[in-house]
Amino acid sequence: MRHVEICFSPELIHLHELTGKIVVVVDIFRATSTMVAAIANGVKEILPFPDLESCQQMQEKGFLIGGERNGITAPGFEMGNSPVAYLKGEFSGRSLAMTTTNGTQAIDKSRGAEQILIGAFPNLEATVSYIQAQDNDLLIHCAGWKGHFNLEDSLYAGALVKALESTHRAEEDGALAMGSLFEKEGHNLKGFLSQASHAKRLQNHGIESDIDFCLTLDLYEIVVKADARGFLVEA
Amino acid sequence: MRHVEICFSPELIHLHELTGKIVVVVDIFRATSTMVAAIANGVKEILPFPDLESCQQMQEKGFLIGGERNGITAPGFEMGNSPVAYLKGEFSGRSLAMTTTNGTQAIDKSRGAEQILIGAFPNLEATVSYIQAQDNDLLIHCAGWKGHFNLEDSLYAGALVKALESTHRAEEDGALAMGSLFEKEGHNLKGFLSQASHAKRLQNHGIESDIDFCLTLDLYEIVVKADARGFLVEA
Repeated sequence: MRHVEICFSPELIHLHELTGKIVVVVDIFRATSTMVAAIANGVKEILPFPDLESCQQMQEKGFLIGGERNGITAPGFEMGNSPVAYLKGEFSGRSLAMTTTNGTQAIDKSRGAEQILIGAFPNLEATVSYIQAQDNDLLIHCAGWKGHFNLEDSLYAGALVKALESTHRAEEDGALAMGSLFEKEGHNLKGFLSQASHAKRLQNHGIESDIDFCLTLDLYEIVVKADARGFLVEA
Repeated sequence: MRHVEICFSPELIHLHELTGKIVVVVDIFRATSTMVAAIANGVKEILPFPDLESCQQMQEKGFLIGGERNGITAPGFEMGNSPVAYLKGEFSGRSLAMTTTNGTQAIDKSRGAEQILIGAFPNLEATVSYIQAQDNDLLIHCAGWKGHFNLEDSLYAGALVKALESTHRAEEDGALAMGSLFEKEGHNLKGFLSQASHAKRLQNHGIESDIDFCLTLDLYEIVVKADARGFLVEA
């Protein structure tokens, strides 16, 4: 059996060994859901940036640029952080440079892992199959909210833990907790999450359709991973 | 309604506002359980220390000294970190200086709060009543294990969240998650925890009786809090 563990915040990632592991980075509302939607709908590759400035400069090189801070599109950016904006396929073939409040920082802090995958509910099953075909232990890196524990990222982590039960042992405390919590609340994700602070913050931004998309299971059969250049591409 | 939130690691406590709040510090296996046991069985006061050296020096001043690192009694210390060692009342009236791997660090990092309480299952109900009689919002500070999320501390936090439902709103993500998890697993704490890494570590130390004590509800009606001098005393 391989092992699975969860890191609940990028501020705790230094406590975890990355070497030799597959790291799944999760920012359900909305960065990693948006990345999966973009790639599934034709975007060729995504280059994540921790900061707004470097990201914005990529526009000169022909990149589509997506920037979000605190839930809204950053000034001067073409795209914010909405997955549904990519569903019509109108950015097919484009290269996307992207920076968000939490998700792209978590990707940056996952460097050193054997592989970095991008996790989201719409391609959960595909990601599970991909992970099960590798020999590596798994670390689920929740992007959280500004360093805080975050409910939707943790529930995705729990969903992954449960789906991997036949191949990955969950004896690390975080994996045990979230596997059990997903067992209890997974049938009613939207209802349970609607009580949470970040979901309320998103509802205030009027992005109900984004929330629905981000909580939909298995729309896509693709897996998104970082390649040797640091671009996120279809695996 | 007041609010309740959870901090899962002393390494995340800087993200939380402490001012004006009651902070309950939790290190179920075993520091805070031992502190409650000691006070309930006659120890007059406990002075917590982050480091072994300063703690050990208190012996010259007539203190009983308790020191633990990585689950075992530190060399040169009279007491380790076992709650059952205090149950016979033979240290009645003594002042205790104490340092442990995680718990005493979490107490140290809680300074600045309006009040600091020491949380444990054996005085859960008494602590709940005390908190409900105050006007302050509540922050539950889990000591964790060397910065990591820890299952038993988080489940105690969940128990506290559930017990405070009538007075304290749990809309912070951590409080929501752990309230729900305790609802699911609270009837079988020992069974659920026995799968966890830290419980296994403790079982390896042959301290089954400590584990049983630490998971026993409402043995004592006392509340333990830090006084103005930084000593832990009966409230």
